Amino acid sequence: MAKVTEIGDFGLIDRIRARKVPHDDDVVVGIGDDCAVIRRGPVLEVLTTDCLVEGSHYEAGWLSMSDVGWKALAVNVSDVAAVGGVPRHALVTLFLPADFTTKANDELYDGLEACGESTGVTVVGGDIVRTKGPFAISITLSGTCERDEVVLRSGAREGDIIVVTGSLGEAAVGLEYLKSGRVPAEGSAGEACVARFRRPLARAAEARTIVGSLQPSSMIDLSDGLVSDLRHVLEASVVGGVIDADAIPVGQGVIDFFDGNEEEALSRAVAGGEDYELLFTIDRQAEDRLADVSDRLGIKLTPIGKITRKGSGVKMAGREGERDIEKGGFDHFKTAW
Amino acid sequence: MAKVTEIGDFGLIDRIRARKVPHDDDVVVGIGDDCAVIRRGPVLEVLTTDCLVEGSHYEAGWLSMSDVGWKALAVNVSDVAAVGGVPRHALVTLFLPADFTTKANDELYDGLEACGESTGVTVVGGDIVRTKGPFAISITLSGTCERDEVVLRSGAREGDIIVVTGSLGEAAVGLEYLKSGRVPAEGSAGEACVARFRRPLARAAEARTIVGSLQPSSMIDLSDGLVSDLRHVLEASVVGGVIDADAIPVGQGVIDFFDGNEEEALSRAVAGGEDYELLFTIDRQAEDRLADVSDRLGIKLTPIGKITRKGSGVKMAGREGERDIEKGGFDHFKTAW
Repeated sequence: MAKVTEIGDFGLIDRIRARKVPHDDDVVVGIGDDCAVIRRGPVLEVLTTDCLVEGSHYEAGWLSMSDVGWKALAVNVSDVAAVGGVPRHALVTLFLPADFTTKANDELYDGLEACGESTGVTVVGGDIVRTKGPFAISITLSGTCERDEVVLRSGAREGDIIVVTGSLGEAAVGLEYLKSGRVPAEGSAGEACVARFRRPLARAAEARTIVGSLQPSSMIDLSDGLVSDLRHVLEASVVGGVIDADAIPVGQGVIDFFDGNEEEALSRAVAGGEDYELLFTIDRQAEDRLADVSDRLGIKLTPIGKITRKGSGVKMAGREGERDIEKGGFDHFKTAW
Repeated sequence: MAKVTEIGDFGLIDRIRARKVPHDDDVVVGIGDDCAVIRRGPVLEVLTTDCLVEGSHYEAGWLSMSDVGWKALAVNVSDVAAVGGVPRHALVTLFLPADFTTKANDELYDGLEACGESTGVTVVGGDIVRTKGPFAISITLSGTCERDEVVLRSGAREGDIIVVTGSLGEAAVGLEYLKSGRVPAEGSAGEACVARFRRPLARAAEARTIVGSLQPSSMIDLSDGLVSDLRHVLEASVVGGVIDADAIPVGQGVIDFFDGNEEEALSRAVAGGEDYELLFTIDRQAEDRLADVSDRLGIKLTPIGKITRKGSGVKMAGREGERDIEKGGFDHFKTAW
């Protein structure tokens, strides 16, 4: 009898997706994108759920309870952002061990509400359950989307430009600091990496501007890592992609951490997860507008490659020529969570 | 520092409710009813979340994985039913221990889908996470409601009749069988009790008929137990209530289990949880229509008492006179989960 650990999480998701589901006219998108998309009269509702489990997603001591509250909501906001939605209403389920204190609960809600205030989300309900296992928080987030603005993973077309927001690899380096116990210098880029792992900034407002100004053909948030998430887009869109190693916006804290070892820094930037930046594809005609939109948003929008024809997989072009990432392998650098 | 176990789940919910939340015009009902109710243009969306955790809600061996899938969805359907909503779309989060098998996953989804098919629910997304703790499943269910049909806990008025669907105490007796290892005779009412604990029938279709035909002033599903859930209605409606001990529809399996001990049987019926029947209140004028609606639905609709003025709490009238349930205490019979 196969264990789910043998087929992996994506294997299990494929197995669940393969099940016959009853037809429902109102389900625009079911399992398999950042959000489910449901028709509600004149608007679309987007629904997503994501959880944080102590010992699975982080170790006690790495995050304060306030960080846990913030992050648990932010990772959901990021999923709503990735389809061009406006995050609105959250349901919060808490799995509480017997020694959980009311102070911890208050701090958890402080972080949750701080993230909610900054992204326009209200907590409207939830569930509380005692567990003999570790602390966990599971959030379901509902948002809205104008019908012509929903952006899926499946819309990338050959010739489109691949763009990422901000800089990459910082959350993975933040995690390395926390795992090793090394404390980065105050005010350093390394400290910003740790903050990024603890309190990711979901690109909700930025996503709306990107959708309005650049009409991306596809979009996804970078939770698993650039290569892994790009692969999701390519598979859903039935296309290939080439990314330019020299174009990847490697975070300053990542460069500092590896002290000039460019290959190591690049590996983290393309394979490290949890940056919660956005990856999107745009028509070549829209590339001229990137600089202007980047100025308005105050964040980098970096073209890192282009969409190719089906079957070419994820390739990386660099000084040593073109590498097939599927085989060349960056997966062993993947953030281990 | 207080532990949450000291203030209890309802204490913790009160603490969370007491927090200042940003005003949101679209939130019709936030924390504190069976569902959150959100305005979506011309219709209302209802949202609820509920989970099952092995070792907290049941012990391994009591339920098959198919039962777990069924029950995890049914308890959410019951919450949507309790506000008069139509259950539609579910997000499923699985917390999987390392030894969880693909066969267990398939069985889980068999049960989930069987319940979904019988109640009109489609699974549209979810999350999968590894845990070092016990298996858990958390479901968020979204449904719709016509704007004039949402029924809250807070609408009961002095003089209203209190009505319950079906019969009570069976799930609690089913749990006693499972805890004790006693196996009820095949085809017996005891066996039906065990089935009821394992695969509760949420009253989704019945609730819609009740709402349409009887215009209940308040409604709740019986998950915690009659006394406990009635108390939620009384508190939300700022009224009191008296229930008639002789009118309580004690399940046949409950009567059989206690072999003629009426007091024990009654205690389980009023304090045992997880029956997932509905309790609702109707205007006295509507009482004449109960028998007709009951015939159409093919289930019992039993008037068990009436709403009194504020401050009188939950009282029970019986052969020995009126007892104050708040003090007289049925809570020690409460299903221990």
